[in-house]
Amino acid sequence: MNETRALFVGRFNPFHLGHLQVVQKILKNEDELIIAIGSTQQSHTLTDPFTAGERVLMIRECLKEANISLEKVFILTIPDIFRNSVWVSHLQSYCPPFNSVYTNSSLIRQLFMDAGITVKSAGLFDRKHLKGSYIRQLMLKGEEWQLLVPLAVFNVIKSINGVQRLQNIVQGTD
Amino acid sequence: MNETRALFVGRFNPFHLGHLQVVQKILKNEDELIIAIGSTQQSHTLTDPFTAGERVLMIRECLKEANISLEKVFILTIPDIFRNSVWVSHLQSYCPPFNSVYTNSSLIRQLFMDAGITVKSAGLFDRKHLKGSYIRQLMLKGEEWQLLVPLAVFNVIKSINGVQRLQNIVQGTD
Amino acid sequence: MNETRALFVGRFNPFHLGHLQVVQKILKNEDELIIAIGSTQQSHTLTDPFTAGERVLMIRECLKEANISLEKVFILTIPDIFRNSVWVSHLQSYCPPFNSVYTNSSLIRQLFMDAGITVKSAGLFDRKHLKGSYIRQLMLKGEEWQLLVPLAVFNVIKSINGVQRLQNIVQGTD
Amino acid sequence: MNETRALFVGRFNPFHLGHLQVVQKILKNEDELIIAIGSTQQSHTLTDPFTAGERVLMIRECLKEANISLEKVFILTIPDIFRNSVWVSHLQSYCPPFNSVYTNSSLIRQLFMDAGITVKSAGLFDRKHLKGSYIRQLMLKGEEWQLLVPLAVFNVIKSINGVQRLQNIVQGTD
Amino acid sequence: MNETRALFVGRFNPFHLGHLQVVQKILKNEDELIIAIGSTQQSHTLTDPFTAGERVLMIRECLKEANISLEKVFILTIPDIFRNSVWVSHLQSYCPPFNSVYTNSSLIRQLFMDAGITVKSAGLFDRKHLKGSYIRQLMLKGEEWQLLVPLAVFNVIKSINGVQRLQNIVQGTD
Amino acid sequence: MNETRALFVGRFNPFHLGHLQVVQKILKNEDELIIAIGSTQQSHTLTDPFTAGERVLMIRECLKEANISLEKVFILTIPDIFRNSVWVSHLQSYCPPFNSVYTNSSLIRQLFMDAGITVKSAGLFDRKHLKGSYIRQLMLKGEEWQLLVPLAVFNVIKSINGVQRLQNIVQGTD
Repeated sequence: MNETRALFVGRFNPFHLGHLQVVQKILKNEDELIIAIGSTQQSHTLTDPFTAGERVLMIRECLKEANISLEKVFILTIPDIFRNSVWVSHLQSYCPPFNSVYTNSSLIRQLFMDAGITVKSAGLFDRKHLKGSYIRQLMLKGEEWQLLVPLAVFNVIKSINGVQRLQNIVQGTD
Repeated sequence: MNETRALFVGRFNPFHLGHLQVVQKILKNEDELIIAIGSTQQSHTLTDPFTAGERVLMIRECLKEANISLEKVFILTIPDIFRNSVWVSHLQSYCPPFNSVYTNSSLIRQLFMDAGITVKSAGLFDRKHLKGSYIRQLMLKGEEWQLLVPLAVFNVIKSINGVQRLQNIVQGTD
Repeated sequence: MNETRALFVGRFNPFHLGHLQVVQKILKNEDELIIAIGSTQQSHTLTDPFTAGERVLMIRECLKEANISLEKVFILTIPDIFRNSVWVSHLQSYCPPFNSVYTNSSLIRQLFMDAGITVKSAGLFDRKHLKGSYIRQLMLKGEEWQLLVPLAVFNVIKSINGVQRLQNIVQGTD
Repeated sequence: MNETRALFVGRFNPFHLGHLQVVQKILKNEDELIIAIGSTQQSHTLTDPFTAGERVLMIRECLKEANISLEKVFILTIPDIFRNSVWVSHLQSYCPPFNSVYTNSSLIRQLFMDAGITVKSAGLFDRKHLKGSYIRQLMLKGEEWQLLVPLAVFNVIKSINGVQRLQNIVQGTD
Repeated sequence: MNETRALFVGRFNPFHLGHLQVVQKILKNEDELIIAIGSTQQSHTLTDPFTAGERVLMIRECLKEANISLEKVFILTIPDIFRNSVWVSHLQSYCPPFNSVYTNSSLIRQLFMDAGITVKSAGLFDRKHLKGSYIRQLMLKGEEWQLLVPLAVFNVIKSINGVQRLQNIVQGTD
Repeated sequence: MNETRALFVGRFNPFHLGHLQVVQKILKNEDELIIAIGSTQQSHTLTDPFTAGERVLMIRECLKEANISLEKVFILTIPDIFRNSVWVSHLQSYCPPFNSVYTNSSLIRQLFMDAGITVKSAGLFDRKHLKGSYIRQLMLKGEEWQLLVPLAVFNVIKSINGVQRLQNIVQGTD
């Protein structure tokens, strides 16, 4: 593998402008990129309101909109395995080989470094507003969130009535 | 299926007077009712102190006490599947066919509506006191809870020393 | 518990005349009976073609047809746990208390006896023809199987187009 | 969704010329295609020797080689769920919406038809030789299999020393 | 079994001086002791930072240091089963037979008593400081924790850079 | 780690004289040995009749009988994970660090070599008779098997009535 292939991991609920910035930055340095969507067995929860398929569609439509060639990007889904000690092997089995990992998470950094894999910083962007949990809070409160995601993502969420879904999920236990 | 068959879902920890009111109300409108007990793999926890078998027994004894014919009611147990996107299919596989669903939960309403199944409101009752979490709190504190459940349910809980069990469950982690 | 309550375990794919004979025989000796349907997470396979809900319906309709009161019989569903060493505890958690177990299976007999629970023989009937695997073979070959099951069971299987389903399941891997 | 999007399901161990013919045929009739790789939690077994990531890479390289635009094809991975009754919902949650399914499997046909989804025949090709199990047998025996797969697939298998891996997997139990 | 064999259950993240006191006390009364390490599928989390293997090594090195013969002690690992109703059977299947259980946990006491097994108090020690959660808090804050664990445990944690690992685990979601 | 620590993996149903020879041979070359018992969630089946705890006891009693110090040997239990691609990481998380692996299995050899870990041959012994499957066949048929296992193992199997258990397990489905 003379070409470089990098990995970028997230749950992408939803894929937002910060994620897009990271993708664009990585593609300046690397030949190919794997966008690995985690927790794909989850949906219809407060932290993971969207299905794996919906998240794939959001990212794909966003890449097309941003004129990023799908020849250079893998969009893959990684179900949770609930075992940190095997998570790197698990993720590797779902991906083609890669040379480096971009992440801002210290846990993911730790797990990959323990496995002897190069970890690079995903770089800085506006982490206060460009953050999944913040965007979901805005959706729940019925406030403005649209400008924090690419237009293509907004369109997917609108087509599935995603804000209404998230609001319906808010409920206590019995 | 010319006759109507409705579904009523809950965890029933324990089955209380509010649940009984719902059952009685539904049976005025429908020929048959499925009472689907959820989270049946759980027991001996703060939210699910009772086993599936104990919950079946509570409901059955209560129906007998209330002169509701067991010919009209299915009491079925549904283990959790931890995947909201397949939960409706999962529940359907454990039940005979049904025409409508009664629930007050907006998440369950959402999931069934996504699957194209009619959802009706389970109706109003005193949700402040007739609520599983409230009754379990009273049990934990050693306060009066008996009047919030049918007598038959009280007798089952007493026979298994259920209040003591719940109090023993309260403990921190390591 | 002064009254006796017995357990009868099977997969019931489908519930046949041999099963019905056992139920009738047990109810001569015991006050109540739990019919525990196993492997209820399975369906659409060669050994378990029917869903849990379909099996519940077969048994219930059959009991009504045979004038066996549902006040005396629990019909419960037990998902597999794939751990023989905990299977008895697992099954007990899904059932109300019982005094004895009827089975012809030497493995189930072993597991219950290890747990100190009384095991009785389910008695003899025509095990060559009244056997789930034999009836499913007849269905697959398009031969006569109807006389081996109660009429109510036949009607349920017909209503779900069960023979066609079983034939569709027959297929090799990749 | 005015455009059509079809689904094609398989395990693709490995992706062979028959699969490629099906993909090319479907893309004549449909705007977009989802290639859904099943059993992706498996690898290093006789029926599933390749990892999910390796299978993704095989298919992707093959599409590039065949000049099929990645703008028109989703390559997605679907772990097994071991519950036929929820399999369609499970698969749907991992995919963007689709209008039709192409398959030659009668079980998959049955499951989708039960869910009310249009199923089309994947069409005929040389099923004696263009079959995963046959190709894996050739690999095991050290016979010629290369001409049954696209060149790009051959190159991926060679790069991972796949034939040797398969031969190492052959072993009895304890 | 004329000799007595006792059970002591914990997660041991990490094994501390309070645990060692319990072990020494039990071995004054019993011929053999099983130290059963729970939640062994977990690692790299705030409550379970260490792997099963690391916890085994900590305990074993500590016993050697304290001149406790390994001929008298079993060190066994018990993965979680997430089903309280079968937990005792699950644990028993991973252990040789034992006569009694030492614990300070009221839930574990309840579960064993329900199974008819003798439960003894693990005795008192300084539960404010000799507590896993307290020691992990000290590690997170970079404060002194070393004196709360046996020297052998400290050496194992140092060799795996355990404090740094725990600090890396602290991170929010998405 | 200046000292060497080797790994020896098996299911040990039961631990036989061939296994003992391997252990003795390894301990001539290595400072410490981990005996890793696999498939420990299984019991009461034809391939895994004994529980994890019974297998631990067999091996431990056998080591004592053979005057092998328990200071040099770890006896650890490894539940199946049903994912070959993560199995090495899974096993590593249950063990202290080790330098080399002894096995006669080509699959295990493949998996460890893929992970960059040294694999050595476990050496030759009488694989026709000293083989778990052969010994279990003798038990099933009621023939002589005692001379193929260490006396300590025979005593454990006798104490649990293991041959009778195995014979009871033999039964068809439904």
